[in-house]
Amino acid sequence: MEDIKVAIDAMGGDNAPEIIIKGVVEYIKDNKDFGIILVGKEKEIKKEFRKLNVNFEDKIEIIDALEEISMREHFFSYWRKREKTSIKKALDLVKQKKAQAMVSAGNTGAVMALAKTVLGPLKSIERPALAIMIPTLKGNSLLVDVGANVDSKPKNLVQFALMGKVYLESVQGIQNPKIGLMSIGEEEVKGTEVVKMTNTLLKAMDINFMGNIEGREAYLGEADLIVTDGFTGNVTLKVAEGVVDVMQSMLKREIMSNILSKIGFFFLKSSLRRIKNKLDYQEYGGALLLGVDGIVIIGHGRSSAKAIENAIHLSKRFIEENVLGKISLEIEKMQKVFKELKYG
Amino acid sequence: MEDIKVAIDAMGGDNAPEIIIKGVVEYIKDNKDFGIILVGKEKEIKKEFRKLNVNFEDKIEIIDALEEISMREHFFSYWRKREKTSIKKALDLVKQKKAQAMVSAGNTGAVMALAKTVLGPLKSIERPALAIMIPTLKGNSLLVDVGANVDSKPKNLVQFALMGKVYLESVQGIQNPKIGLMSIGEEEVKGTEVVKMTNTLLKAMDINFMGNIEGREAYLGEADLIVTDGFTGNVTLKVAEGVVDVMQSMLKREIMSNILSKIGFFFLKSSLRRIKNKLDYQEYGGALLLGVDGIVIIGHGRSSAKAIENAIHLSKRFIEENVLGKISLEIEKMQKVFKELKYG
Repeated sequence: MEDIKVAIDAMGGDNAPEIIIKGVVEYIKDNKDFGIILVGKEKEIKKEFRKLNVNFEDKIEIIDALEEISMREHFFSYWRKREKTSIKKALDLVKQKKAQAMVSAGNTGAVMALAKTVLGPLKSIERPALAIMIPTLKGNSLLVDVGANVDSKPKNLVQFALMGKVYLESVQGIQNPKIGLMSIGEEEVKGTEVVKMTNTLLKAMDINFMGNIEGREAYLGEADLIVTDGFTGNVTLKVAEGVVDVMQSMLKREIMSNILSKIGFFFLKSSLRRIKNKLDYQEYGGALLLGVDGIVIIGHGRSSAKAIENAIHLSKRFIEENVLGKISLEIEKMQKVFKELKYG
Repeated sequence: MEDIKVAIDAMGGDNAPEIIIKGVVEYIKDNKDFGIILVGKEKEIKKEFRKLNVNFEDKIEIIDALEEISMREHFFSYWRKREKTSIKKALDLVKQKKAQAMVSAGNTGAVMALAKTVLGPLKSIERPALAIMIPTLKGNSLLVDVGANVDSKPKNLVQFALMGKVYLESVQGIQNPKIGLMSIGEEEVKGTEVVKMTNTLLKAMDINFMGNIEGREAYLGEADLIVTDGFTGNVTLKVAEGVVDVMQSMLKREIMSNILSKIGFFFLKSSLRRIKNKLDYQEYGGALLLGVDGIVIIGHGRSSAKAIENAIHLSKRFIEENVLGKISLEIEKMQKVFKELKYG
């Protein structure tokens, strides 16, 4: 594994580069067999290493990048300076095969947009998709797409399903994952025209397709993989965040309302903290951009050093398990099925 | 107000007709000026009145209906028997102007489908929409559409916004409500083609339009009215239900895990119950089918007697405030704006 390398955007995330360097240092402590290339402002990166009092500089390559893209920066603002940004330069390394994967905790929109243009699509994939693990009652499930696309065709949704399946099988070790199609009723006759056609196509594939699934069932953990268009997926994610926020705020308000509740809170505190952690997306190692010609892992902007370390481990699994090759095989099978169905 | 009457589906809901009759009895205790027509199995209705030991039979008209539609019954199953069902007969009364409003806590899909065919659309409305109050951090907000349509055009979404606005102003007393368009980013460039066009149209209307809004902001209560297509709205509702379920189950599990948590729970119990009630949709008087030529209020299947009583009050406000007439005026204004824009 000597020649395997991962390019890390040192400038991405709310607490970059500090947290990123911390995560990298943690990773390198226990793992010697894996090369790291840090991309970002060289001076700042070196300063962080000095602060941590570790001298890993000889084991880590640093690529200087003059510009960074802030977390809320819009497309029109960063597009002009893109060539000099840490995100673009990290992706270039993957494109040039100098690294096999790219990890960033930066601006998700920017990473997606740049990855699409720099890496291009994986062969026969029409649209990449953003996948994320959501916390459910039974553990967690993969939700694809959560915002890489807005208007998706049935063919795209089938590809999202196959890419998610390969990821769950290869990286998460979930064999033959249960796949649900997000809709507004379990009956096949319900849903948009796109959902209905996708249902028909997914049934024709050799996968563990359980049919349509409603938002409630998704959070109860009925499916390992939930397929939906990027608009619906993104709304799902944001609504879930909002509801968690609302419940937490209500709880706080109630707790402060009287002395009995305050006593109760004192005893329940650690339980409530555990629930909060379970529901927090940053614990889940970030989002995956599936379907581009390279491995791209996008951590949450609030990623901890632990989350960065996890993301590096994740990228390693991606490479070792040849996820991109397996996706291409699944897409070839899909094309055969579509041909038989005379679809597309 | 002597001649105002509301037709109530006595057979709709998980605990019909018992809960329905209880709700009606509660309503009639304090309100003499409002006629009630109960539609359903006459024998069962009369039995419930006897059980409650009240003799309101002389003040209430009962229309016998031989069939009822169960809560989870599918279209193909109930469509043949529809003429004899309590839902259809209650809607007929509105159509024939023998009642001004219809209330049902029955099968939402059936009420919608039958209301569309029996009552037809309100003049110049292309598609009716289902509106529901969702609990938010600041109180509650109206979400339209939550499932009357799947594929909606921009024009439909604008009409949903106007109908929701009239309802909030006339019935809920919220003047010039803040209206948000559900999308996946606040920037106008984000969202589906339908969302982008709708954003442009809503900006041209004389309303308090705050632009796009994300799912998280919706639950934080940033808008009084959230406009979305029925597919996204329904997913939103179901995801929110699922997340609430997940948090409650996690909390239960945590509470049972050790003695300290159990003690904490003892003191926090009433606070937790209050939160549960706030988040429970059944407290919010049900959904409104806006845009059909009649007033249709659909209570939650688990409606309590109190919720039924509230739904009757709500229907009264609808009639008194001439909501349907006001909606028609708003739609006329919309048509003028569309003409100026050369749209549609």
